[in-house]
Amino acid sequence: MSDVLRVAIAGLGTVGAETMRVLRDNADLLTARAGRPIQVVAVSARDRAKDRGVDLGGVAWHDNAAELAGRDDVDVVAELIGGSEGIAKDLVEAALGSGKSVVTANKALVAHHGTALGALAEVNGVALAYESAVAGGIPIIKTMREGLSANRIERVYGILNGTCNYILTVMRETGRPFADVLADAQELGYAEADPAFDIDGVDAAHKLAILSSIAFGTTVDFDAIDIQGIRPISPVDLEYAQELGYRIKLLGIAEQTEAGVQQRVKPCMVPMTAQIAQVDGVFNAVAAEGSSVGPTLSYGRGAGAGPTASAVIADLVDIAADRKVPVFGVPGAALSAPRAAGIESLSGSYYIRLMVIDRPGVLADLTAVFRDERVSVEALIQSGRDPGEIVPVVLTTHETEDAAIRRSVAKIADLEAVTEEPRVLRIEAI
Amino acid sequence: MSDVLRVAIAGLGTVGAETMRVLRDNADLLTARAGRPIQVVAVSARDRAKDRGVDLGGVAWHDNAAELAGRDDVDVVAELIGGSEGIAKDLVEAALGSGKSVVTANKALVAHHGTALGALAEVNGVALAYESAVAGGIPIIKTMREGLSANRIERVYGILNGTCNYILTVMRETGRPFADVLADAQELGYAEADPAFDIDGVDAAHKLAILSSIAFGTTVDFDAIDIQGIRPISPVDLEYAQELGYRIKLLGIAEQTEAGVQQRVKPCMVPMTAQIAQVDGVFNAVAAEGSSVGPTLSYGRGAGAGPTASAVIADLVDIAADRKVPVFGVPGAALSAPRAAGIESLSGSYYIRLMVIDRPGVLADLTAVFRDERVSVEALIQSGRDPGEIVPVVLTTHETEDAAIRRSVAKIADLEAVTEEPRVLRIEAI
Repeated sequence: MSDVLRVAIAGLGTVGAETMRVLRDNADLLTARAGRPIQVVAVSARDRAKDRGVDLGGVAWHDNAAELAGRDDVDVVAELIGGSEGIAKDLVEAALGSGKSVVTANKALVAHHGTALGALAEVNGVALAYESAVAGGIPIIKTMREGLSANRIERVYGILNGTCNYILTVMRETGRPFADVLADAQELGYAEADPAFDIDGVDAAHKLAILSSIAFGTTVDFDAIDIQGIRPISPVDLEYAQELGYRIKLLGIAEQTEAGVQQRVKPCMVPMTAQIAQVDGVFNAVAAEGSSVGPTLSYGRGAGAGPTASAVIADLVDIAADRKVPVFGVPGAALSAPRAAGIESLSGSYYIRLMVIDRPGVLADLTAVFRDERVSVEALIQSGRDPGEIVPVVLTTHETEDAAIRRSVAKIADLEAVTEEPRVLRIEAI
Repeated sequence: MSDVLRVAIAGLGTVGAETMRVLRDNADLLTARAGRPIQVVAVSARDRAKDRGVDLGGVAWHDNAAELAGRDDVDVVAELIGGSEGIAKDLVEAALGSGKSVVTANKALVAHHGTALGALAEVNGVALAYESAVAGGIPIIKTMREGLSANRIERVYGILNGTCNYILTVMRETGRPFADVLADAQELGYAEADPAFDIDGVDAAHKLAILSSIAFGTTVDFDAIDIQGIRPISPVDLEYAQELGYRIKLLGIAEQTEAGVQQRVKPCMVPMTAQIAQVDGVFNAVAAEGSSVGPTLSYGRGAGAGPTASAVIADLVDIAADRKVPVFGVPGAALSAPRAAGIESLSGSYYIRLMVIDRPGVLADLTAVFRDERVSVEALIQSGRDPGEIVPVVLTTHETEDAAIRRSVAKIADLEAVTEEPRVLRIEAI
């Protein structure tokens, strides 16, 4: 073990540059905390000429990131490139395979290949650290793997995508439609030019897959996640949520059920008084419920150069201090393949919003469907009267099975008076 | 290093018994997480005959806790006795001195003797772990020492005493006076028979002293804390807080100011929309603001057998896995003595509630005092009119110096129309 922890950084976007800056600016403090200096000795990025606001003097430059894995003078590779395949994956595999620890902010990579990469790290006796891949600056990986190690985790859920949370927050506060708010978010830099990854729930699902693996001691099972994004949410749904005492949040939820591990990313209703309902704007929060500790919640910035660099450096300090943790909390051999439970195995309460032609008999038709499917209606709101026009009708149900809701909604969608696809949201018991 | 981590538990109250139970019930899981088994080999408590719901078979019993430190077959002593002096302190010193690691839930001990005990642990190359001493099941020590290691911490604050938070919550929800709610809390087991330690802010101050040390890399300085409890809070204050858009919380706050480190435990007003304002009942929360990560908050149960055992065991798992962290985040030699800043060095906004005789000229007298002290009044509320009777008058100020508020309030208290001690609360910018 060298006296200095020698780091190579692959990818000098805002996170990579900020990581370099903080490592230098806080060098004395970090050395005291880590027990030895942490020094960047090599970097790789696409454009050497670009001004990133950090001095690259004395640091080896590689146009090809893969070369970082071959350097004998590197102890740790920080992979800040991104993407589940290609250069990032090749680099991480090569680095682990050559006995180098890896720190990565790459949620897609860990969600898709975490189990295999974890095994590779274990075989080579090195770390694969990914604190920055989940919920940015919130040290939730450390919290779950170490801070809550006494607990059997019963459920983990969270607001895992700041873009979606920002959009939902602004829609609620302003009543403006999804597309408008998304366009603003793109201008403000809170959403990408191609926003699909965020707003369709894929990014949140990557993070959920990782949290689920740690929570339940299972191999990473991204493909089992039931994913739905926030595009279908209308301002009218946010208004009804408010009226009913809820907030609409895009939550990633992984829970142990009798049928197995159920993982989902979906917009849902949460009671307005729940701690997580208060998390607004670009912030993230992750709640873990443990057998001894009960409910916990960790809150902070889930993205951005500063918070992400904070997590990258925390991983580097752990490696410098030789603090070792099994990649997913237990040795790879102890990870079980999760028995995946489908969403149809759930029961719960539901919010259903319909657009119907306001005419006699419509409510009777609707309620007949629910009666036939043995779904118990808790509340029914038909706010305005406007004979012959299209008006919203909102129902909430008592606890029922997901399958019964699906059947009911399919029948209702076929009713002549129902003019658009019914909007169905689970009311999560949180 | 033995294959098994051998633990002695001193103190078999609810926490000690729960720790034993969880170590046994979750033995397989904990072995996988820690890399080796954790086994209780010896215990000490006052009454051997008492039924604690745990099997003590095969575990050595000591009437005298001090003897645990002398056992050759013990790697770690878990000190769950409590108290800053006497048996707990003697045991911890003896254990550390004989090369045993110590896990303790004893906030008073660490607040008063943490620096010296930390040095003793360091000299002997063992751990002094105290996750359970601060905020119960919330892994805030790990979060601050490791999860946020990249950051310079600018401020740390929290709801650190569940008893006080419960009482304030119930007072707000019911409008009942402090003494009544305290009596109920005592019956429910949320407050001790002698509640002074909790409600006068001492317990919260113990925890704050520890957090402050980690946050700022300073020796533990309990004596510098400005402490005030919740006894003076009336339901009328909670009502005005609500009207003005605030919640009243007992916060422990440690912050870097130009004058040095300012530590205080005081009831204060926080904006109703702040994350910490939503923390109700017996729950705790700790917010840390870091240079890279920005605002963070960790929420969970701050007391009780389960949450405390969760933290005790997390410390044991870290020790079993040989994960080492300097006791207060940096080596003892790197800890500086804090330059303590008095509360008079602060500025901010204030809430002042007076009880005055409702008669002409009173408001003119009050406002003249503020004018003379150059305190700018933001709002003044005189809710009811009741000539000749005692009525509340509430003022909030713009940003001003604490010293000016003190002088103003002293003058106001001397006015003939003012019938009781003015109530002054800081409005914390959170």
